Amino acid sequence: MIAEKPLLAVLGGATLKRPPVWFMRQAGRYLPEYRSIRAQAGSFLNLCYNPELAAEVTLQPIERFHFDAAILFADILLVPHALGQDLSFVENEGPRLTPIANVGDLSRLRNGLDQDRVGRVYETVKLVRERLPADVALIGFCGAPWTVATYMVSGGKDRSAALLWALRDPDGFAKLIDRLVSASVDYLCHQIDAGAEAVQIFDSWAGELSPALFSRWCIEPVKAIMKGVKARHPLVPVIAFPRGAGSKTSILSELGADAIGIDTAEDPVAVRSLLGKTVPLQGNLDPLALIAGGRTLDDAIAHVLSAMSGGPHIFNLGHGIRPDTPIEHVEQAVRRIRGD
Amino acid sequence: MIAEKPLLAVLGGATLKRPPVWFMRQAGRYLPEYRSIRAQAGSFLNLCYNPELAAEVTLQPIERFHFDAAILFADILLVPHALGQDLSFVENEGPRLTPIANVGDLSRLRNGLDQDRVGRVYETVKLVRERLPADVALIGFCGAPWTVATYMVSGGKDRSAALLWALRDPDGFAKLIDRLVSASVDYLCHQIDAGAEAVQIFDSWAGELSPALFSRWCIEPVKAIMKGVKARHPLVPVIAFPRGAGSKTSILSELGADAIGIDTAEDPVAVRSLLGKTVPLQGNLDPLALIAGGRTLDDAIAHVLSAMSGGPHIFNLGHGIRPDTPIEHVEQAVRRIRGD
Repeated sequence: MIAEKPLLAVLGGATLKRPPVWFMRQAGRYLPEYRSIRAQAGSFLNLCYNPELAAEVTLQPIERFHFDAAILFADILLVPHALGQDLSFVENEGPRLTPIANVGDLSRLRNGLDQDRVGRVYETVKLVRERLPADVALIGFCGAPWTVATYMVSGGKDRSAALLWALRDPDGFAKLIDRLVSASVDYLCHQIDAGAEAVQIFDSWAGELSPALFSRWCIEPVKAIMKGVKARHPLVPVIAFPRGAGSKTSILSELGADAIGIDTAEDPVAVRSLLGKTVPLQGNLDPLALIAGGRTLDDAIAHVLSAMSGGPHIFNLGHGIRPDTPIEHVEQAVRRIRGD
Repeated sequence: MIAEKPLLAVLGGATLKRPPVWFMRQAGRYLPEYRSIRAQAGSFLNLCYNPELAAEVTLQPIERFHFDAAILFADILLVPHALGQDLSFVENEGPRLTPIANVGDLSRLRNGLDQDRVGRVYETVKLVRERLPADVALIGFCGAPWTVATYMVSGGKDRSAALLWALRDPDGFAKLIDRLVSASVDYLCHQIDAGAEAVQIFDSWAGELSPALFSRWCIEPVKAIMKGVKARHPLVPVIAFPRGAGSKTSILSELGADAIGIDTAEDPVAVRSLLGKTVPLQGNLDPLALIAGGRTLDDAIAHVLSAMSGGPHIFNLGHGIRPDTPIEHVEQAVRRIRGD
């Protein structure tokens, strides 16, 4: 008999005495072993596309902290890159893409994902799964169409270009979103084929939209992705992380995701009472509490554990871990969460 | 008999057939007449501290669009500046201050506000009030302690420095917040003495805090400011604008402000149902809809009017107006809101 992985048990609806734990961006710059591999790879994109090195950095935080889940090391912008959009990362600034600024620009995108690119990601998934401890689950991921589109349309971090397109030409913008829905279904299904046991859809910029636009451009496309994934993999759980959408919980309840990630600013008690006690919630320790450490960190963890105690819970941060996080604070947090 | 000003009627609890309207940052760079005065002043701070010119730019949008309220032209960082902190504005980047990084740095602040600085602001209020049409209300304002502290502690836009201080040394951070509460009460009361008929407290960065920190660092200080203002001016309404706090509405209901501003991302129907139908709500048209114009703008206005129709409503944007907003779209919006 195979012992069930705690993360998958919670995604299946179980409430565990001690929640499974993983941290968003757990493979990252706060780890010296990550910085070493990153330097070896030369560039961030080289690292994403090198299965051996990407698998190694995916596994680093598991080896060091024994998290309950590994999350594929990749980037949400690999999908537009595999659709043929130029992509580079400027050190300390962020991504640069040649903007897809209007419906005419859509002709510059390929119809399907470039297998030379995404194939390397699937290979990373395969390598990680082979090397993962038996009780650790592997999470694949993609960006939600809205969030990915904000980068594609502006070529960088300015979210207003995508929103203006969506407001001025909703039918044209829907064509871009539809392309991303199809590509994301294909991308996630291949990750699952390669060994991912759950997938997360990151909608980092969902929180800024008005309720009507959130419903149309965040909820509907993510529902469509889930439907496509479930058609081929009905038993693989999908975690949705519509960051900052806590004020729109009534719309969120229509999403039907297997679990919902919530950010630091949101109130787990309120979200739980609106979504019901059976939906697993993931989150929501403040990444800054992890930097502060000491009693501040212990108190913040106790607060999250208590607020989340009414139902299935996966312990996580509310945002990604920051590069200036002391490693010993991560160790302290994991001990505390596990009650060691 | 004096005809009541529509804005004050709504702040007193009236539901009008057509809501009064003003726009955050209505005096700003989208207006050529503003850019002309701004160039004449030389710098943004010079403009803030020149009562004649500041009064003129405060009145420009009233003359052009006949808004129902003028809001004092000033900046939330004039309070730290009047407390003795260095302040400058770097073109296209934002404010620069010498950080107050810990409790020891508090000794660098004055005990009271520098009257040479704030006195000019009160003079602006006086000039505007004298020149304002009879049916237009004058709104004074300050930043909420939390938001002002984020700039004071980091010296710029990085909010994590203040949050880390608050997490690591809450007692020390409370001393900074208390200084800001006292200074803000004094500042708002003097604005009211000079002619402001309502005041708004802008808490632009309230939305990012966890519920517990939001309660302690946003709600409590703003309550303390309101208490101080009401002790001297019991009848002057206070509008609170805790931007992005929509997921924490249950805490917001404890605030007891005379009106609540809500941003674009929040759902007026949900906020109304949680706060009750008697609290006036202000907001929340997307500033990007104002850039889009046309039918998109008409539809967005109809949506806001409908969502807000269950109680007292002041029509406003969800964030400040953007510099690239076409003037004719503002004209279109005001016509539409008034049903002309």
